[in-house]
Amino acid sequence: MNTATTTKIANTLHEIQMLDQNAMTAARARVDFLTKPPGSLGELEEMAIRLAGIQRTAQPTLVKKAVTVMCGDHGVTEEGVSAFASELTGMMMGNFTREGAAINVFSRQMGADVIVVDVGSACETPAGVRNEKVKNGTDNMAKGSAMSREEAMAAIEVGIRLAEELASQGYQAVALGDMGIGNTTPSAALVAAVAGKAVAEITGCGTGLDEEKRQAKAVVIERSLRINDIDSSWRDRMDAIEVLARVGGLEIAGLAGVTLGAAACGMAVIVDGVIAGAAAMMAFEICENVQGYLFASHLSQEPAHGAALAHMSLTPVLHLQMRLGEGSGAVLLYPLLEASLRMMYEMATFSDIGL
Amino acid sequence: MNTATTTKIANTLHEIQMLDQNAMTAARARVDFLTKPPGSLGELEEMAIRLAGIQRTAQPTLVKKAVTVMCGDHGVTEEGVSAFASELTGMMMGNFTREGAAINVFSRQMGADVIVVDVGSACETPAGVRNEKVKNGTDNMAKGSAMSREEAMAAIEVGIRLAEELASQGYQAVALGDMGIGNTTPSAALVAAVAGKAVAEITGCGTGLDEEKRQAKAVVIERSLRINDIDSSWRDRMDAIEVLARVGGLEIAGLAGVTLGAAACGMAVIVDGVIAGAAAMMAFEICENVQGYLFASHLSQEPAHGAALAHMSLTPVLHLQMRLGEGSGAVLLYPLLEASLRMMYEMATFSDIGL
Repeated sequence: MNTATTTKIANTLHEIQMLDQNAMTAARARVDFLTKPPGSLGELEEMAIRLAGIQRTAQPTLVKKAVTVMCGDHGVTEEGVSAFASELTGMMMGNFTREGAAINVFSRQMGADVIVVDVGSACETPAGVRNEKVKNGTDNMAKGSAMSREEAMAAIEVGIRLAEELASQGYQAVALGDMGIGNTTPSAALVAAVAGKAVAEITGCGTGLDEEKRQAKAVVIERSLRINDIDSSWRDRMDAIEVLARVGGLEIAGLAGVTLGAAACGMAVIVDGVIAGAAAMMAFEICENVQGYLFASHLSQEPAHGAALAHMSLTPVLHLQMRLGEGSGAVLLYPLLEASLRMMYEMATFSDIGL
Repeated sequence: MNTATTTKIANTLHEIQMLDQNAMTAARARVDFLTKPPGSLGELEEMAIRLAGIQRTAQPTLVKKAVTVMCGDHGVTEEGVSAFASELTGMMMGNFTREGAAINVFSRQMGADVIVVDVGSACETPAGVRNEKVKNGTDNMAKGSAMSREEAMAAIEVGIRLAEELASQGYQAVALGDMGIGNTTPSAALVAAVAGKAVAEITGCGTGLDEEKRQAKAVVIERSLRINDIDSSWRDRMDAIEVLARVGGLEIAGLAGVTLGAAACGMAVIVDGVIAGAAAMMAFEICENVQGYLFASHLSQEPAHGAALAHMSLTPVLHLQMRLGEGSGAVLLYPLLEASLRMMYEMATFSDIGL
């Protein structure tokens, strides 16, 4: 079995630590003295405690926040799996640079910086978008491997380097965003393979397929898995990077890299919808220790999303029936993470009020 | 059957309008032209459209936001239904005035003003808390009516007048907050009566009862309903105000009044957990037209909360496992409501990007 990785990837995996239990214990002690019944702020308490564990201090902060929108195209769109044409990937990259997309609007509100990266679009990289193109879109995975293993690793490295750069600039959290027409198809394929779900159950309508086209999309996903030799026993024959190469996407591999790199650097990672969920899940499959660094944000309408989150034991807190991508649901978690820290620092304790 | 109300209440009910369908249609048209697949921002789209209907304009705004924390005590605490003593209601009112409670912290973050009102605590009203006391805590509902009908109506009027005052000051939304040791007990009683649920199923652990005490609390609720002649056919014999008087609370009646007054004034109402949920549900039982003005925020750990929301066909979007009250979950919805409006005004349209 080929489990070779680049030195960069191997070093990154080596640097991913378990969360700091001492910092978490100290943070929990503080939280339990606040003027509220113990546990009554639920997930907000867990967020604050986990941020402490990630930052390895009982006094975590969240001053610099980012969202990275990784972009890529998909050869499998020639099978008719998307309601939109691949050209839209490029047009939306332009929209990001003009700050007119949902992710720009929500990030402005939440005080998060947007970094748009072309990891693998089929079009020319627009000015203002970071060009880290590994390949001009994947090959059609319904006819063979979407990428070579080397290309998948190169895309992972794009993400790792970006995460390292963000960490060196003081960012403490990064949200995973994506743009790529057709990318719910490889995402569902990855979730089917890794979480062991039936393709028919986890194939969604993407940007707006009708039921007939959704079923046809499921057939394409089944064929892609079959032709790439991915069945319920794939773990006997290949590793997660190989699966990512065969039925993944360049932006998905990039986001898996961001996840690995962020965890190695002690940054929190905010998971968005099904594409980000699939990417985080592949990072989790490559290195289980990333789990503690991950925060689920919203629960997408795409059925593969819930399956990916459940596979990682992550619980989404925003139930907004969204299915846009771009990181648009992920950045909506930032005010809740901030509320969790304000809770810890600004609330009175029971001894403050004389109890 | 006694269905008499005060002139103030009758006038308020008369002023509650259905949402403005023209404004909603115009807002939806705008939302459908934005650079995203139609419907892909899910509940955010619905929030923006509903704010348009509430404010009766296709260009709604959310500049002034409030949370009102209504406080009251409960005679039923002598039955041992709470893990905390009634004295804590007064201590927490003091905590609110010193801005050390969760609701102060979260409201500061979200830019919402906090108005604390003593509608019926058993202690002296602390300086800085608005004194609108109708009664020094309810009577023990396990032994008779919690309040007289007149007292319940007086508490409702406190809420209506507060909502009118907020509207006259330009507030566009009000979150429903509560403080009152023991108040999950009357809330569960109201939900059992109005939503037709089994008491055993919807009685929760409140601020932290163990299973044995939770079951004892359910027995107290059963007894309270029985002694007050509230069974599955109560609607044949009494109206909702009467139920609120018999097994409700002063802060619950106050929040029902805020809901009615806010709807009459065209303000959005953000529902918090089980106490606010029970209050909104009583307002809904009094006047179904309030439904369009209500936004569910979080889903509480208290089982009666989900039942109350379902009874009003409201869907909570924040799943945070919270159970604190004070409006602490409700104000967390504000950034999402704001995101919904920013979406409408700041996102590019498909024609902007040349499609």
